[in-house]
Amino acid sequence: MLPLFAAANLDIHDAPSRPKNMIIMVGDGMGPAYTSAYRYYQNNPDTEEIEQTVFDRLLVGMASTYPARQSGFVTDSAASATALATGVKSYNGAISVDVNKRPLTTIMQMAKERGMATGVAVTSQVNHATPAAFLVHNESRRNYDEIAKSYLDSDADVILGGGQKYFSSSLLEQFKSKGYQHIDDFSQLSSITQGKALGLFAEVQLPWVIDKQDSTQLSLLTQKALDLLSQNDKGFVLLVEGSLIDWAGHNNDIATAMGEMHGFANAIEVVEQFVRANPDTLMVVTADHNTGGLSIGANGEYAWDTQLLQGIKASPASIAEQAIAIDSWQALVNDKLGFEVTDTELQRLSNARMQGKQALEASLKQLVDTRSFTGWTTTGHTGGDVQVFAAGPAADLFKGNQDNTDIAEKMMSLLPRTK
Amino acid sequence: MLPLFAAANLDIHDAPSRPKNMIIMVGDGMGPAYTSAYRYYQNNPDTEEIEQTVFDRLLVGMASTYPARQSGFVTDSAASATALATGVKSYNGAISVDVNKRPLTTIMQMAKERGMATGVAVTSQVNHATPAAFLVHNESRRNYDEIAKSYLDSDADVILGGGQKYFSSSLLEQFKSKGYQHIDDFSQLSSITQGKALGLFAEVQLPWVIDKQDSTQLSLLTQKALDLLSQNDKGFVLLVEGSLIDWAGHNNDIATAMGEMHGFANAIEVVEQFVRANPDTLMVVTADHNTGGLSIGANGEYAWDTQLLQGIKASPASIAEQAIAIDSWQALVNDKLGFEVTDTELQRLSNARMQGKQALEASLKQLVDTRSFTGWTTTGHTGGDVQVFAAGPAADLFKGNQDNTDIAEKMMSLLPRTK
Ligand SMILES: [Zn+2]
Ligand SMILES: [Zn+2]
Repeated sequence: MLPLFAAANLDIHDAPSRPKNMIIMVGDGMGPAYTSAYRYYQNNPDTEEIEQTVFDRLLVGMASTYPARQSGFVTDSAASATALATGVKSYNGAISVDVNKRPLTTIMQMAKERGMATGVAVTSQVNHATPAAFLVHNESRRNYDEIAKSYLDSDADVILGGGQKYFSSSLLEQFKSKGYQHIDDFSQLSSITQGKALGLFAEVQLPWVIDKQDSTQLSLLTQKALDLLSQNDKGFVLLVEGSLIDWAGHNNDIATAMGEMHGFANAIEVVEQFVRANPDTLMVVTADHNTGGLSIGANGEYAWDTQLLQGIKASPASIAEQAIAIDSWQALVNDKLGFEVTDTELQRLSNARMQGKQALEASLKQLVDTRSFTGWTTTGHTGGDVQVFAAGPAADLFKGNQDNTDIAEKMMSLLPRTK
Repeated sequence: MLPLFAAANLDIHDAPSRPKNMIIMVGDGMGPAYTSAYRYYQNNPDTEEIEQTVFDRLLVGMASTYPARQSGFVTDSAASATALATGVKSYNGAISVDVNKRPLTTIMQMAKERGMATGVAVTSQVNHATPAAFLVHNESRRNYDEIAKSYLDSDADVILGGGQKYFSSSLLEQFKSKGYQHIDDFSQLSSITQGKALGLFAEVQLPWVIDKQDSTQLSLLTQKALDLLSQNDKGFVLLVEGSLIDWAGHNNDIATAMGEMHGFANAIEVVEQFVRANPDTLMVVTADHNTGGLSIGANGEYAWDTQLLQGIKASPASIAEQAIAIDSWQALVNDKLGFEVTDTELQRLSNARMQGKQALEASLKQLVDTRSFTGWTTTGHTGGDVQVFAAGPAADLFKGNQDNTDIAEKMMSLLPRTK
């Protein structure tokens, strides 16, 4: 049932026309500081104005994310995805099961009951917590192999992302016998023009946007999902996840996080175009939680150096890996960071390098944080509310404050009625 | 001029009726993490649900807060208050002057030109940055004495808050000769029932809510301001500021910050009641920026201990001051913190106490942060967007994303037209 306040917000003018298609997009870990940071990261210093982002265009409200009481106030991705997929709060780790580990009906199941198409397009392995909670049920997000196998019974039409290592050749055969076309390279995307698709484009997660210097991966998967799913006359429900924003956040890696934000923002723009061309489609964008306690400005400084961040050409992990392997590592570091490190900084990096790749990566991240005035409070999640963005029919339903379970309830209420 | 996107968001249904009265309320430093934290801090553990707060009821959008380009992406309270009062971005430190230090027209001046009443009610000294930017112009927020004197020419009807030290007896005489009734104690509030009021209730800022164990101070000032200003037939513009949320944030003091949030929330509820009783009144609530890089959860822990925070009965500063003065300080600390400190923690506090009051206060704050899983990244401000809350006629104008200057532009556009 819809919470009272949502109903109270509605009046005749706002009463939603029912969308044919619904797309929910999750920026994993994308707390409000990330979308503000992304605006400044994207800012063109040559213009007088600060350019708006797609997030600015689409903001309608915010959502609380706390899990079931037994897990406290700070959610993990599994409990939050369960809330978004089922409208019910559960424990951290739960994949669309309730606190008693009983399966909860997901919006994807409800869509299937109505003859609609369903799909997921993500940058993590496809059997990671968020897509898993939309497609299947499991008592633990860690049961990756079990989750991958259970996708066979999800009847999802499109499954795109990483995760080759979780799909054995025999499992792939089973998918094929269920009618799935299997691909494992972006170049094969164009070969699939209809029917079911299982695309696994990396061993585990997709490469970082900043390292590939390519922010189109998730956009390509999203576009393909839209092309395939929109062939169903009864409509579709699609989940798109910018999964690795969270991973970069866990790593307290601001440059890499901004790259992932850019990839996710591009995918949102693809969906925004689809909604413009198909006014019977609702898009809702949100985050499952905050990651890292990111702040724009830190250590007493009233500043954030976006130009420095814009110049960084590779992730600290990749720079460290390359710098460990060569003698002329100092030139490489200067080149990849896009700025000249000082003698003191160089000494610190050199000491770290002698301790190995991980120490060098940590030292590089610290250097970037110090130079850019970026703050972090944790390598885990934090409990602040996240933003909600929407466009299309009934987008107004999502305005103002709501709980993450309300987002699911509202979307479910917009599905076609069953007899 | 209103930004295009605001106009585009409007349709006939949303077109605002022009409010007679406008109240802008600023939670200084109140980034999104503060309103989420306050919800959990206020949560009644004896009920199944997490209770909504006034912030949840009133949320309509968010706002960016960056100052004029020369000051980077992270604003101070002066530049942000200038943006909110004038619709123009300026440098950090500016009190309603532009980047060339020329005075900018404030919404309070525009209200006065229209014969409306104006006023401020704050918990800092009345001549602090935010109220100053609404009432006067100065090239620097630090010119406290000059700012206090210039209030004589502001023609503001109601000036309530702290700041006795900035108002000499001769300056007070000048205010009296301008028709102001001067009071310096809350008990005198009832003596003023009409006309102009200058109420200065503390040497500098008002006492912390947590130390006074009284969250009604700002509510009482707000109610008095409403009572007085609403006697003007042409309407009024009132600024209310929960000024000390920011100060607690600068101190990285979560327990004290939550007390100030409670005082501000109570004042918002007073205004909410006024808006319900006077449907011709618009209220807009926002923050000027984030302070402290607060996060709910820290150091890898997926938790936030609100019950611990709820039990703290005094600010760490006050506990330290008392604990320095007595021998049985350990019992006092346990009593004021509301929990039993461990032997290890006690040893740490004891070592700090030997270094003096400041060290003990810092140690107490660290203890509370560690125990409650509270994170901070800075003793300064951070650049993330803040929330916007609104109710009353034209509240919809403030929905979605906007800049802080847009808030001023929108409010100005709602003033009565002049010939
Ligand atoms: Zn995570
Ligand atoms: Zn401040």
